[in-house]
Amino acid sequence: MTIISNKGVVLKAHPKGMPKVDEHFELVDRTIDIENLKLGENEFVLRNLYLSLDPYVRLTLKEHEPKHERTINKASKKQLVQIGQIIIGAGVSEIIKTNNPNFKVGDLVYALNLGWEEYSHIKSDATSNFFFINKDLLKDIPLSYFASFIKRGGLAPYASLKYIGKPKEGETIFVSAAAGFVGQLVGQIAKIKGLRVVGSAGSDEKVDYLLNELKFDAAFNYNKVELDKALYEYCPNGIDIYYENVGGETLEVVLNHCNLFARIVACGMISQYNITDPKEKYGVKTLENIVTKRLYIQGFVVTDYIGTDIEKEYEKEIIEWIKSGKIIYKETIFDGIENVAKGFVDMLNGKNIGKYIVKLADY
Amino acid sequence: MTIISNKGVVLKAHPKGMPKVDEHFELVDRTIDIENLKLGENEFVLRNLYLSLDPYVRLTLKEHEPKHERTINKASKKQLVQIGQIIIGAGVSEIIKTNNPNFKVGDLVYALNLGWEEYSHIKSDATSNFFFINKDLLKDIPLSYFASFIKRGGLAPYASLKYIGKPKEGETIFVSAAAGFVGQLVGQIAKIKGLRVVGSAGSDEKVDYLLNELKFDAAFNYNKVELDKALYEYCPNGIDIYYENVGGETLEVVLNHCNLFARIVACGMISQYNITDPKEKYGVKTLENIVTKRLYIQGFVVTDYIGTDIEKEYEKEIIEWIKSGKIIYKETIFDGIENVAKGFVDMLNGKNIGKYIVKLADY
Repeated sequence: MTIISNKGVVLKAHPKGMPKVDEHFELVDRTIDIENLKLGENEFVLRNLYLSLDPYVRLTLKEHEPKHERTINKASKKQLVQIGQIIIGAGVSEIIKTNNPNFKVGDLVYALNLGWEEYSHIKSDATSNFFFINKDLLKDIPLSYFASFIKRGGLAPYASLKYIGKPKEGETIFVSAAAGFVGQLVGQIAKIKGLRVVGSAGSDEKVDYLLNELKFDAAFNYNKVELDKALYEYCPNGIDIYYENVGGETLEVVLNHCNLFARIVACGMISQYNITDPKEKYGVKTLENIVTKRLYIQGFVVTDYIGTDIEKEYEKEIIEWIKSGKIIYKETIFDGIENVAKGFVDMLNGKNIGKYIVKLADY
Repeated sequence: MTIISNKGVVLKAHPKGMPKVDEHFELVDRTIDIENLKLGENEFVLRNLYLSLDPYVRLTLKEHEPKHERTINKASKKQLVQIGQIIIGAGVSEIIKTNNPNFKVGDLVYALNLGWEEYSHIKSDATSNFFFINKDLLKDIPLSYFASFIKRGGLAPYASLKYIGKPKEGETIFVSAAAGFVGQLVGQIAKIKGLRVVGSAGSDEKVDYLLNELKFDAAFNYNKVELDKALYEYCPNGIDIYYENVGGETLEVVLNHCNLFARIVACGMISQYNITDPKEKYGVKTLENIVTKRLYIQGFVVTDYIGTDIEKEYEKEIIEWIKSGKIIYKETIFDGIENVAKGFVDMLNGKNIGKYIVKLADY
């Protein structure tokens, strides 16, 4: 091989609100000459195998808008993608060229800074963004699972539920956006721990999936019921842990249903992310519950746990749970770089049950 | 002594909004015959020496109004005072008659269930509401300090700052309602721990007191400045701990100024307590900061700490700090049962700097 094709997805325009495939993304047909490409110190060429389509990438696509100076965006300014640039995500890659002494050709890595492209030339010392995949595990676990689930994707819900939620047998957990990747995993781990697990989702199909495949104790379609009534019905003993993915009015209602000393794991507040004017955000009126019920609320991001003992503990437990069938992981795998933008937009529109993954190459 | 006077303050009408002395309270002139009074098992007669005038008592004066069924009031239904009943508070008393084998006549106790009256006949086994006062300490510390400050009153701010706020040298703490009893103590303890201490209060006199007597690093009158601007000016490095006494719009603005991993000690949200219609409460629109900055928010009540090792640790430290002059405790002592209602209403109206105490009898 000398010069080969290296298609990739670049940002065509900064989306406002929900991105559209044709308006905001462009598939570009490029080439790469791997043999003759000269690597700088500690550089890499990766052959990308699986891309994970994650909601956080949406935050990197917006234009830089200074808000309240002390407000921290989930995507910092330097992570924002410029128009014409390849979009950056996470996934599984094979190292096919490097001069970094800590890596060798043929290593499989979970990489946090992959381009949405077939081959990535990583120009920085990327060691802190690369994590080795133990090939021995591949006899039991599909390689695609390492594009997110076994690695960073599952670590966040696992660690936050365990160390912020502090689940105890017999308690009730309520999970919003429960059919999403995070919600599914949180609910299943909570079942393993012996909790009553109640989830909300946006379609009857998702509710069926939660009840019949994941064995949630209760689930409801939030478009069809009034949340306050639903929580009386499905959480008869109140809520001990709220796994918060949506924010806004949902949080306002849930606070009224929390028990004394309930824990709120603040994973995301997705209902508020597309509201750019701070005055238009939903105002939560029930915060006195924090004082009167001695609630505990904590935010986190996955990087708080990466590289800690909690990460090792997670990988050990999750692999056992997958092997023993205690955790069901649902993924939909699309084929080819041509399907990345469409899969990403469908995921943002909530079409997915479980994780969306794109397979870029055979391994 | 046989039959003696025992004046007390009863509830005349349930206040809505701010109570008024003549409308809602009545001084009743009663008698008590201590010698001939027959005690039931484990009963007591107390001679009340000092009453503490505390904001929480206001919560016990309202009519029972079922709100959201799962909402917990700070005062539970059984704590609510009925019209014509003696109001219940905390303070220092001398036991003058008892058949409880764990107590003897002459013991001084900090009692949580005193009537606002000169003598109280305690009909229940009140052991869990009585705490012995070590008379050896009285050579260094005025007895009035035991009516709240050294006991329950100071324990709450001490423990919550230490165990929820987790103060570290060099950090910045912002305290709302900083000239109140809780705020003063929190600010002074934070100074001892080496923090930059910034407080807000509602009058220039209070601001002067915070700056000149308590040596806060900065303080401002919230009626005269815009909070957002003030926090940029007085907290140049952002806020690491917010000691929350007021809630509502203050909390909304403070969240924007919090640093990564800031802690919010949710002591009270007094700005919201007099708003009875849930729809009229202030809606806080900046909660996304919890996720993006990984904030930690926790509510508590003092009973979470009572009887724990933290309480012993508190009493030891606070007594050392008072003796060494590191903590200034400001109290205003009124004389006589006739002044209880007026002092209480003045305190609710924010007239006090420091603690209001009523002396009922010499010791």
